[in-house]
Amino acid sequence: MTRDDPVTTNPDHYRVLWENERVRVLDYLDVPGTETTPHDHPDTVMVTLTDFRRHLVSDEAGVDVELKAGRAVWLPAQRHAGINIGDTPTHTILIELKGENLTTDSPALGPDLR
Amino acid sequence: MTRDDPVTTNPDHYRVLWENERVRVLDYLDVPGTETTPHDHPDTVMVTLTDFRRHLVSDEAGVDVELKAGRAVWLPAQRHAGINIGDTPTHTILIELKGENLTTDSPALGPDLR
Repeated sequence: MTRDDPVTTNPDHYRVLWENERVRVLDYLDVPGTETTPHDHPDTVMVTLTDFRRHLVSDEAGVDVELKAGRAVWLPAQRHAGINIGDTPTHTILIELKGENLTTDSPALGPDLR
Repeated sequence: MTRDDPVTTNPDHYRVLWENERVRVLDYLDVPGTETTPHDHPDTVMVTLTDFRRHLVSDEAGVDVELKAGRAVWLPAQRHAGINIGDTPTHTILIELKGENLTTDSPALGPDLR
């Protein structure tokens, strides 16, 4: 599978804050209605700086995800595209983990909210 | 060196949100004047949910650290104690990385703000 880096596919919304040997840290910012194109995430911890209401889609499925500001959630490695279906901008920090992903087959779409 | 887990040494302020095979995610919350006792952090990414003004001390040194809300910083593995020297509560998320730390000798005290 080709890995589509969101920093490359959606540079108006994803940017690299910094990286080192263990992590790459991204800032994500959009406005209501923003749609991203399909991209790949490695295993990631996402921290919401704002409320977060998105519809995520993969080739096989779609899911709505709603989170309050100040949450820290696990985003297992996955390919998706997203749309901001909320009424406010979305601002999140994504801590991408380098090294081997935990899940190599298809994980559930979106963050793990169990 | 004995590892003093902040969740054990300072349970009124540090709590585990969740963990998996790659990370353990902590919530830290205090009020102005709160002092923690010495504890150890593994390699960690810290995200500030509030402004952050602290004095950190180790056996050898002390440093003041000031951060705005919404920052994501690298905290290399280290032992320290802290005091909230600001005027507001401190609320942060700490993403502790499992596995071998990058720095095994003494890193600079506090987060890496380069």
